[in-house]
Amino acid sequence: MFLDGQAQGPQDGLLEPLTRITARGWLVPIGGCMQSPEILTRFIDLCGGVDARIVVIPTASNEPDHRSYYERIFAPFQQRSLEVLPVATRADAADPTLLAHIAAASGVFFTGGNQLKLATVLGGTPMAELLRARFAAGMTIGGTSAGAAFLSDHMIAFGEEGKAPRTAMVTTVAGLGLTKRYIIDQHFRQRDRLGRLVTAIAYNPIMIGLGVDEDTAAFISPDEETIHVVGTGAVTVVDPAELDTSAILEALPGTHLELPGMVVHVVDAGSVYEFEERGAAAK
Amino acid sequence: MFLDGQAQGPQDGLLEPLTRITARGWLVPIGGCMQSPEILTRFIDLCGGVDARIVVIPTASNEPDHRSYYERIFAPFQQRSLEVLPVATRADAADPTLLAHIAAASGVFFTGGNQLKLATVLGGTPMAELLRARFAAGMTIGGTSAGAAFLSDHMIAFGEEGKAPRTAMVTTVAGLGLTKRYIIDQHFRQRDRLGRLVTAIAYNPIMIGLGVDEDTAAFISPDEETIHVVGTGAVTVVDPAELDTSAILEALPGTHLELPGMVVHVVDAGSVYEFEERGAAAK
Repeated sequence: MFLDGQAQGPQDGLLEPLTRITARGWLVPIGGCMQSPEILTRFIDLCGGVDARIVVIPTASNEPDHRSYYERIFAPFQQRSLEVLPVATRADAADPTLLAHIAAASGVFFTGGNQLKLATVLGGTPMAELLRARFAAGMTIGGTSAGAAFLSDHMIAFGEEGKAPRTAMVTTVAGLGLTKRYIIDQHFRQRDRLGRLVTAIAYNPIMIGLGVDEDTAAFISPDEETIHVVGTGAVTVVDPAELDTSAILEALPGTHLELPGMVVHVVDAGSVYEFEERGAAAK
Repeated sequence: MFLDGQAQGPQDGLLEPLTRITARGWLVPIGGCMQSPEILTRFIDLCGGVDARIVVIPTASNEPDHRSYYERIFAPFQQRSLEVLPVATRADAADPTLLAHIAAASGVFFTGGNQLKLATVLGGTPMAELLRARFAAGMTIGGTSAGAAFLSDHMIAFGEEGKAPRTAMVTTVAGLGLTKRYIIDQHFRQRDRLGRLVTAIAYNPIMIGLGVDEDTAAFISPDEETIHVVGTGAVTVVDPAELDTSAILEALPGTHLELPGMVVHVVDAGSVYEFEERGAAAK
């Protein structure tokens, strides 16, 4: 594994404006512990600014007090419409009244908690299908922590900490399926999760890993070609495009993995990762 | 879990002819230990009959003698063109000469072995991309045993035996990604794999499980709506559409899972499973 450690400093105020595109929506995984107002400002902007109709899905959490918490979080942004949907069961995820809110939304935000709760409650329901259809038609969808992990097709359900990839240190299951290209991890450097993200990719190097730090968001463009990093941390990009061999099949359980050619970029807030160039540039 | 045990007897000779459709290709997972000539007859027929240009990908296997074995297997069917491609490394899966064979093929067949070898050698390579593009354009793709497991988006990499679903009894990773609707298991009733297939679906009930018996093939139509079962065994369909709750998050490691509303159909060879009607009929 090759560590491309050239961290680039934040370039506050130099980010290109995020433009809206009519095809798919923007996808906005956030690494948890959101503090920077810039993250929600940009998210709401992509949802229509003051006219944004945001729906919060708090299913991942066990906290009873979502509504007032998320009303307080979104309050400073002068955006007029916010609904926190009570989706706790698979029956809720088929309730026409709740579905109508999503049909009318311009943006959806998943809270943190446990991503397996999102997968087991929403997976295969009419609500998941509607979310996928609205996203395909241009709606912005974001989420923090567990809500970020759930967004991708292959989702990291749980795993062990540590920098070194080892067999059996990570469990992946199906997620919401809004991106096949990227697999998302969160609380990334704070919880020392490089090993589990690299291991997830070693099983099938079809995906690019995005390890999103706390208080940091990866704004993934509708064509998936560029990722704007916003907040105070970085997004760690794990890229297997030049991987020579994935030795996960031969490795004994729990041993370290040899993965020659796996490339890791650390893309700091204020920079943009360009998929085609396989690199980051301050903009 | 509700077991719909109404097994239907084989109705040899009563299968509807499989017609070719110009959109996606037919997808043909086979459960291993292929004996019935009818399976390869129908597979080759979908690939163009005597004009079929079949490419065999033996990557899953460690056997050195693929070529003569598969030449012998395909010999009785009077089909004129067969290539067994030597794809053993990720570099092979980017080799233009080998890619040209796939570009010219009318059907591709994956041998058995270990499906993680397929995922680690082919995942994210130009060959995997080409296979996905050709399948989307109508090419027939099949595989037996490990080669069947690899076909779906979410692939069962390995797991434990037993009928009762338990937490942590199965590991799923990314597969080739030719179907998102179905997740495929193989050697199904012979190796007592109902538990691991149900558990894989319990993590995210977005997928329908197909447990394919030995000497049995599931011919999945290009629109994914019908599955023709051919051979001597059955396809066990695990359907979470009416699942009330997936308790996998609350269950302690290794304990049995409560999954009220999970439906299991056993669809015998000679019958056709209709997705829309969620049931099977002898045809």
